[in-house]
Amino acid sequence: MARKAKARKDTVTPEEVEKNLVSFASDVRKQIGKRQSPKMEIPLRTLANTYFDKQAGLLRLGGKSTFRSYLNTAHTRKFMQTMLVNAEIKSIMDQKAVISIRDMYYALKHTIEGTRENTFEEQEESNPIIEDLEATLGLLREQLNLEAARRGFMVGNITLRDSGDVINARKQGSGGWGVPSRIEEDIIQFEDVEADFVLVIEKDAVFSRLNQDKFWKKHNCILVTGQGMAPRGVRRLVHRLNNEHGLDVIVFTDADAAGYYIYSVYKQGSINLSNQSHLLGTPKAKFIGLTTQDAITYDLPKNVTIKLTDWDRKRAQELLNYPWMQSPGWTKEINHMLKVGFKLEQEALTKKGIRFVSETYLPEKLKKKEFLS
Amino acid sequence: MARKAKARKDTVTPEEVEKNLVSFASDVRKQIGKRQSPKMEIPLRTLANTYFDKQAGLLRLGGKSTFRSYLNTAHTRKFMQTMLVNAEIKSIMDQKAVISIRDMYYALKHTIEGTRENTFEEQEESNPIIEDLEATLGLLREQLNLEAARRGFMVGNITLRDSGDVINARKQGSGGWGVPSRIEEDIIQFEDVEADFVLVIEKDAVFSRLNQDKFWKKHNCILVTGQGMAPRGVRRLVHRLNNEHGLDVIVFTDADAAGYYIYSVYKQGSINLSNQSHLLGTPKAKFIGLTTQDAITYDLPKNVTIKLTDWDRKRAQELLNYPWMQSPGWTKEINHMLKVGFKLEQEALTKKGIRFVSETYLPEKLKKKEFLS
Repeated sequence: MARKAKARKDTVTPEEVEKNLVSFASDVRKQIGKRQSPKMEIPLRTLANTYFDKQAGLLRLGGKSTFRSYLNTAHTRKFMQTMLVNAEIKSIMDQKAVISIRDMYYALKHTIEGTRENTFEEQEESNPIIEDLEATLGLLREQLNLEAARRGFMVGNITLRDSGDVINARKQGSGGWGVPSRIEEDIIQFEDVEADFVLVIEKDAVFSRLNQDKFWKKHNCILVTGQGMAPRGVRRLVHRLNNEHGLDVIVFTDADAAGYYIYSVYKQGSINLSNQSHLLGTPKAKFIGLTTQDAITYDLPKNVTIKLTDWDRKRAQELLNYPWMQSPGWTKEINHMLKVGFKLEQEALTKKGIRFVSETYLPEKLKKKEFLS
Repeated sequence: MARKAKARKDTVTPEEVEKNLVSFASDVRKQIGKRQSPKMEIPLRTLANTYFDKQAGLLRLGGKSTFRSYLNTAHTRKFMQTMLVNAEIKSIMDQKAVISIRDMYYALKHTIEGTRENTFEEQEESNPIIEDLEATLGLLREQLNLEAARRGFMVGNITLRDSGDVINARKQGSGGWGVPSRIEEDIIQFEDVEADFVLVIEKDAVFSRLNQDKFWKKHNCILVTGQGMAPRGVRRLVHRLNNEHGLDVIVFTDADAAGYYIYSVYKQGSINLSNQSHLLGTPKAKFIGLTTQDAITYDLPKNVTIKLTDWDRKRAQELLNYPWMQSPGWTKEINHMLKVGFKLEQEALTKKGIRFVSETYLPEKLKKKEFLS
């Protein structure tokens, strides 16, 4: 069924972004005009300033911020760097270009005239400045025409436009459309969203199996894989499909602490990017499996289970303590995993037959609406 | 210009592959029929049995092989495993399915009836058996309907079919077509090969820059990135485009030992897969840059160069000694790198302007046919 877009876009136009950049710089200029030492307010991106917003179902950055003052010698270098990054973003936006954060580092690195001081020594210096600006302006780096490393592929019942080209995701072969890093509305527009839900798959091999079996056609959905940890592009894509088109988002990972964490990143956002959860997270995302309890339900032989490592146990304990994982369902599953002492990979389902995942496991869970929450 | 396919395909039909699998198994069966202890001959996949075939410009596996004998208790387990893998490949091919090598491990892992012995304990046991079969049958795992982990994206002046879907690579937006692991002719057919050459780009960020600037349109080419080390799918794709359609293959990497090795893998193949170089390598591949000599030619400031690490120096020495890197051009470049003590990333070109790579660096080198060889 084709559905109408809900008017809930949280995209911004390049003009709005540029206005923000200019306003940030003008503010500094005004202070200099008044012969003050210019200051800038930067939100504190620390664990202590991060909290779980239960109402919204998202990790959030709290209200604490810090001031960066030009004439405080402890701040001068970072102040200068922030202004450089701000100006360079304005410049690349004027050129209608998108560059990587590594490009940004190289573009800005130079020796300051008349000194032996470099503007930046390592990319480890420019990345946090970019993150400061993202938090200060309340924007994603992608909205500032910066790209992060990307991974992931998509197929399914949807047509979209990418940089003007029509991508019919029903006709993407075995390869799929490569999910870009930037999913902002100036380049990605959704046109014919036929699918009812998005199935987000941890492993590319499972994505390939489901694509071969045309699972997306039979179940009217979109398949997307992030090839492991949730990449920003896939998070933003999934967020927009849910937010703008009301598509259910269903996550399918390994039954282990790493898989459960991937799910939580798609859902509530991540701790270190908590200022961006509202643009990258999907609080209504559901978890379809695997669970270690599936090993019993589906009678998987013991020899396809994998013994937990110390790291697995430690991470599982941490998950148990995360406020956003506090639910009877998740507590039960994680404690079950710790009790039985094993984890399971998505590929373990192959033991029951090559097409068990596409013809039995997922269809049964979808039919019974069996989601862990 | 559209060009005719040269009749130089090295693809095989599923029927031919199945014939090989059955013949391998029948041979064992015949020996049992004669009440002999069955034996199988497996090529030795060792460094000592690998050589550089100067004539072909490829790394090759030599003629040495070993015999695996069922009644030799040191061989029995591997013999059993080889037969299991052979049978499972036949079975997935009969089902017209493609699975990952991890799926293969799970599909075959079981406890042998009446014993406490597992067929396989870890994937580290099943992978070498798959490699043995590839070498024995002279086929790629992809021709045996097995998939490896994949990376990489493609755009440019070409239309192809992937699993029946028409992929017009001129209309793939910013994302690009995801290069699958399997580029065999049963799923990938080239239809409208307009491009004159393939530009193989190490870094995805540079691919993105060139795609944004429609470099492929201006220079009538195909852009492909392997996002780092050369993935099998991209190697096979590039090989087929060169072999079947005579497209030049031009490789563009960082100026460092890792980048130069990536180039050599696309060109001559890799040591550990030397039995597959004739299907994955492209002996006529050319190297366009970066080189450390470019830093001087293009007057790149010293502060965008990166100091060599001990690992870089060690790898550079190894490259100098590889028989397939013995040329005045490469010897000069690697010695230059060691002398100046720095390496360069592709992104360093951004220092000269965002579009320096697409508007100056690559066009100049292409025009002058300035390739390092």
